Amino acid sequence: MCSSECDPAKFMPTEQPALDTATVGADLEHEPRLMLATSRPMPLDCGEQLRSFPVAYRTFGSLNADKSNAILICHALTGDQYVIGRNPVTGKPGWWEIAVGPGRPIDTDRFFVICANALGGCMGTAGPREIDPATGEPYGLNFPVITIADMVRAQKLLVDHLGISQLFAVIGGSMGGMQVLQWASDYPDSVFAALPLAAAPRHSAQNIAFGEVGRQAIMADPDWCGGNYVRQGKRPERGLAVARMAAHITYLSETALQRKFGRNLQDRAGFTYGFGADFQVESYLRYQGNAFVERFDANSYLYITRAMDYFDLAREHGGVLSRAFLHNGRATPVRFCVISFSSDWLFPTAVSREIVHSLNAVAANVSFVEVTTDKGHDAFLLDEPELHQVLSGFLDGCATHRGLPRRRRGLR
Amino acid sequence: MCSSECDPAKFMPTEQPALDTATVGADLEHEPRLMLATSRPMPLDCGEQLRSFPVAYRTFGSLNADKSNAILICHALTGDQYVIGRNPVTGKPGWWEIAVGPGRPIDTDRFFVICANALGGCMGTAGPREIDPATGEPYGLNFPVITIADMVRAQKLLVDHLGISQLFAVIGGSMGGMQVLQWASDYPDSVFAALPLAAAPRHSAQNIAFGEVGRQAIMADPDWCGGNYVRQGKRPERGLAVARMAAHITYLSETALQRKFGRNLQDRAGFTYGFGADFQVESYLRYQGNAFVERFDANSYLYITRAMDYFDLAREHGGVLSRAFLHNGRATPVRFCVISFSSDWLFPTAVSREIVHSLNAVAANVSFVEVTTDKGHDAFLLDEPELHQVLSGFLDGCATHRGLPRRRRGLR
Repeated sequence: MCSSECDPAKFMPTEQPALDTATVGADLEHEPRLMLATSRPMPLDCGEQLRSFPVAYRTFGSLNADKSNAILICHALTGDQYVIGRNPVTGKPGWWEIAVGPGRPIDTDRFFVICANALGGCMGTAGPREIDPATGEPYGLNFPVITIADMVRAQKLLVDHLGISQLFAVIGGSMGGMQVLQWASDYPDSVFAALPLAAAPRHSAQNIAFGEVGRQAIMADPDWCGGNYVRQGKRPERGLAVARMAAHITYLSETALQRKFGRNLQDRAGFTYGFGADFQVESYLRYQGNAFVERFDANSYLYITRAMDYFDLAREHGGVLSRAFLHNGRATPVRFCVISFSSDWLFPTAVSREIVHSLNAVAANVSFVEVTTDKGHDAFLLDEPELHQVLSGFLDGCATHRGLPRRRRGLR
Repeated sequence: MCSSECDPAKFMPTEQPALDTATVGADLEHEPRLMLATSRPMPLDCGEQLRSFPVAYRTFGSLNADKSNAILICHALTGDQYVIGRNPVTGKPGWWEIAVGPGRPIDTDRFFVICANALGGCMGTAGPREIDPATGEPYGLNFPVITIADMVRAQKLLVDHLGISQLFAVIGGSMGGMQVLQWASDYPDSVFAALPLAAAPRHSAQNIAFGEVGRQAIMADPDWCGGNYVRQGKRPERGLAVARMAAHITYLSETALQRKFGRNLQDRAGFTYGFGADFQVESYLRYQGNAFVERFDANSYLYITRAMDYFDLAREHGGVLSRAFLHNGRATPVRFCVISFSSDWLFPTAVSREIVHSLNAVAANVSFVEVTTDKGHDAFLLDEPELHQVLSGFLDGCATHRGLPRRRRGLR
């Protein structure tokens, strides 16, 4: 993840974090936004630095007096800070309404939930679509290539700004799960509990291959303009839609696709013997592709998939994953709950087991659940009662250990 | 597959097949080529007809006196008639040298091997790249959308032309395996043995989804020009390369990708923090994409993937697959050898088992082997000793039943 840049001291929180930020004007679309690293630049794994960069985030619920009830949710590749509530871009409900909210497993009546748009994203946090202060124009490909560790480093500055010295939990699925692992590894004293869902300790060759297909689809679109499409008043919509379509297949299991669509035809009695969307699954994919380009930035897609490709937690620790979970030579104090989904072929159960084995190897505190479902990788976002029971139960147990009030039962 | 066009008599061989063809001038690139359906048009499932259309094919070995030793090999999506020997387009050896040739499992010292470029292809058989006699220009999207049954219908005309009333065997992998099933179903008296490898009785929702991604990648390329790129002197190379890259991932198992490439870097010591091919797997995919556009036609890719999407053998038989294997109310006389590959996730063993169950349901003669391999779908093309033993053994057994000479052992 980093080479000569690997001075741990460099990644420590600033001593006066609250001074190193500034609130951005409320006229911006994705408020609240903070300017981070205003007095001291944040180092990046690539060797560059970011100074005075925005992070857009949302919070839900109330922070308790001793600031011990904060849960950071890390979103996946195309997610954003709008976990619950209306998303101002799509006009739709938040992406995790089913798991987060009053009385939900991640109970906003009990917990102070934080979610920030990831570094490199396109919903208000610094990324290729944001304005480069050096030029006054969008960064485009001048934005430095970032890593999962960089995303986490920015989140840590935000959490510091909020005055929270230890998060009660860090939770995330898919790329969010990578960030959870990175958080636990880089800031073990700042995380009480870590819940990586449908996660992986590295991108596999197949994962990278799908990432590359998406990037090539975008870069093959002439409207990508070498990354300068914003300046040229264009958008590589066709390429981005193809990238989304290819990726979307990987989010669903073969069984789920068969169950949802099978070979059903789309509003027609028979084959048209043409290249329209004869099959429902084609129509569905086209819809997914077209909807996606309305809300996502093509360059952000390049940057974030690249960050996932580069992720390899063991690599930062001499190739031995368990060393990522050592803290001062002993097992990490973080309590883990690793959750995988039986039909997930993107980040299959085997790689979650590898995380668990590495945690066991250092005698860390870890629970592991493989949720049986046919819904594939995206199951972590869906109505999976077993998942929600596990989330509730694990968070309840941790709350007791942490001295937080017990859950009020039977209210909802 | 067909609706009002489903008059079985229509699909019967012509009574004087040799008269319905004409040899095409030897100056053409892909000789030999025959003109089929010169006196009587060939009906297509879409309702249209093809008249006087070329089929390019190759033969290897010698046809015996009673014409009982012919093996038809059906190629896969991007294959061609150059099974063995130098391919004039790529300059490389044939695509199945490992299984076909003197002393090989498909032994050209014993068998007369035929392979024709599939209908819709781009290696000399009628397809969107060929000249439309009605206009004198390439068909482009004016070529009728064809099906697997149409491909097989054209092959039957070729086999008739060669004076072969019964093929000793029909063999093919992937889309070739679909054609094998179609052959056995449509012409049970003309096939002694059928060997579908890594095949499926239908395209699944996930298969269709990947097909659609490829088509959308091609059609998103402005150089596709609505299908008229040849006339406009362009080629949608970028879109076709992306289509190939996405498809290529599905041909390999996750394990094979991990074994071959893992997270190895491509000729560099560390990450470049850019969007070049840092990883070997990226470089490999880019190479596959770029090499493919040198030899394949984008419109052919649309047509052939569409034919695969439309394939659903049960659909032609009231939704009951086993009925495809009834002949005059009894079990098909065709001897089957169904072969699947344990790590094939595109056409997994489960769908081969479905073929076997359907054959068992009508008490047909069927052998089934799942070859244990980590090489994925493409294993049928690769050095898989177990596959080659099964091919040899099954063909030997069938040869005995058919009264063909036994294999000379120990020569190679």
